[in-house]
Amino acid sequence: MIPTITWEGGEEGFIRLLDQTQLPDREIFLEIRETAALVEAIVALRIRGAPAIGVAGAYGVALAAWNAAHGERAQGPAASLRALAAVEEEAGRLRNARPTAVNLAWGVDRALQRYRHSIQAGSAPREAAAAALAEARAIHEEDLAMSRAMGAAGAALLSPGAQVLTHCNTGGLATGGLGTALAVIFAAARAGLEPRVFVDETRPLLQGARLTAWELMREGIPATLLVDGAAASLLASGVVDAVLVGADRVAANGDTANKVGTYAVAVAAARHGVPFYVVAPSSSFDLACPAGRAITVEQRDPGEVRAFRGQLCAPAGVSVWNPAFDVTPAELIRGWVTERGLLVPPFTALQAGGPGR
Amino acid sequence: MIPTITWEGGEEGFIRLLDQTQLPDREIFLEIRETAALVEAIVALRIRGAPAIGVAGAYGVALAAWNAAHGERAQGPAASLRALAAVEEEAGRLRNARPTAVNLAWGVDRALQRYRHSIQAGSAPREAAAAALAEARAIHEEDLAMSRAMGAAGAALLSPGAQVLTHCNTGGLATGGLGTALAVIFAAARAGLEPRVFVDETRPLLQGARLTAWELMREGIPATLLVDGAAASLLASGVVDAVLVGADRVAANGDTANKVGTYAVAVAAARHGVPFYVVAPSSSFDLACPAGRAITVEQRDPGEVRAFRGQLCAPAGVSVWNPAFDVTPAELIRGWVTERGLLVPPFTALQAGGPGR
Repeated sequence: MIPTITWEGGEEGFIRLLDQTQLPDREIFLEIRETAALVEAIVALRIRGAPAIGVAGAYGVALAAWNAAHGERAQGPAASLRALAAVEEEAGRLRNARPTAVNLAWGVDRALQRYRHSIQAGSAPREAAAAALAEARAIHEEDLAMSRAMGAAGAALLSPGAQVLTHCNTGGLATGGLGTALAVIFAAARAGLEPRVFVDETRPLLQGARLTAWELMREGIPATLLVDGAAASLLASGVVDAVLVGADRVAANGDTANKVGTYAVAVAAARHGVPFYVVAPSSSFDLACPAGRAITVEQRDPGEVRAFRGQLCAPAGVSVWNPAFDVTPAELIRGWVTERGLLVPPFTALQAGGPGR
Repeated sequence: MIPTITWEGGEEGFIRLLDQTQLPDREIFLEIRETAALVEAIVALRIRGAPAIGVAGAYGVALAAWNAAHGERAQGPAASLRALAAVEEEAGRLRNARPTAVNLAWGVDRALQRYRHSIQAGSAPREAAAAALAEARAIHEEDLAMSRAMGAAGAALLSPGAQVLTHCNTGGLATGGLGTALAVIFAAARAGLEPRVFVDETRPLLQGARLTAWELMREGIPATLLVDGAAASLLASGVVDAVLVGADRVAANGDTANKVGTYAVAVAAARHGVPFYVVAPSSSFDLACPAGRAITVEQRDPGEVRAFRGQLCAPAGVSVWNPAFDVTPAELIRGWVTERGLLVPPFTALQAGGPGR
């Protein structure tokens, strides 16, 4: 498990966070005791990935709640309401660290609601802080449980010694510690299947090279890095048993949006008969979206392609086409590994149960 | 036309060479008056690409010949033989600048042979130097004529306003000034077809971003850069009319080895019905090689993938799969554009005429 974010130091403790901007060069852990420091870490992408910042937001509310309790020497309803006001203000700051990140607001609000209910039910600030921390821990544990469930469902698809190709980072760094597609690899490794992983470097931001390769090496799983353009000939060579990728969004018909380059891999995998699986929690399924053509692909900053870590590698004024993701049609996907098992469209298990979280 | 390498200053002049290691940041031209400086430029990859260094080697012999003539005040057979010995020594140094580069030795030897014959026929060192320069100029002109022939044959395949996708650098920088696949674009532009070009950045060495984008912008041709992984979704979007790539080696059945990532583009182009053409001179066809499976793909330095311009972007010790090129099967290729026109296997036009050079 990747120590992306943890609560340390017991009940009245602090957040320990792996600074992802320093990877893979350095493993630097930040001890965060104030929400301002957590806001800075979220803004600076020291922690990123929707599930991970959802967990971070919830722990941030717990931190604010303990700080409010420590700052409030008085007792009684007035003191509790002052603490609630302070925590709500901090929660607002956390929520605004990345205003468009749905999971962040969701994590913050869930912990805040628990705290508010506790205060409104007459709890002292310390009791309410303990309740907020319990909620944050529950969110974190739910994330890990979902990853474990996806891991188990996906590992069942792999044979001993399976060689897997993956794209982008779908591991513990983007989540509470286990991830989606990489959770399958971690589960397979724990089950003794000894998987080996080929990792697309994933231009333009190199999440495969910087993050996925680091996660796999840290867990002692054999990892081989390749440029994205080499994946097709790797698939042609016959050494890949399965492709596992994550998803930004899965449409009702199974068309799947994911990091740009995913579709290229899917096309080559189909040509060579290599099974291609999407690993994603039920929360990534948008059953209101009928098909991939309804998904708008936004363009990202041209500078991501023109330069590498601030160093120009193309003519300064060249036009750039830099889509954030691409859409893989359902027909190229063998199955969707979710916390509810291996699914195929029309995903009736999800329609029955509603969103997983 | 790209000023990759030219002979300047009249008959007794010098080599002018565009320092490609400075591109795309700076356009720096080197004036080379000694073979030692040319050897340094070839070793340091200031000029690279098989045809380009063939031309450079021949001009280098001409340079050595003029320097020998200037250094030889005496006249008569003994003086001529001393000049020949000096030029042969310099030619050996040039040939060893990149010992495995077949074109370099070929260009050096062709100019040297002309020089030697001239001396042996009783010419004075100055007359023989003029002959060596004439031979170098002929080699350069043959290269340009071949590019023009490929350009004309390829441009005939494009419609007005054609949008072309290309991979790696196949332009004037690797040749005498016009290239292979880019020669088609240059010819289409001269013919008023107003082509637009999508350029794969071409990891790991980014020849597309660094060189192809620069060449196109220099010629005023609209160029749009993309990461290699985005090419498949670009092809899916329907905006690409044709794919044009170069070749390292074409087998007798048409299977084509080219820069890694080419096969990925070919697979996606086939899926979306976009015609995929290889542009290569007849000298790139190896009719003794029956098929792509007979081509050995060598692995290059893992550091090319782990780092970018010396800056690490992956864990230092991660394993890397870094094939120099991939092999695109003939069935994915619509046609092969050569200086003898558009060909398809079994390439009878080439079997009849033998190698083009």
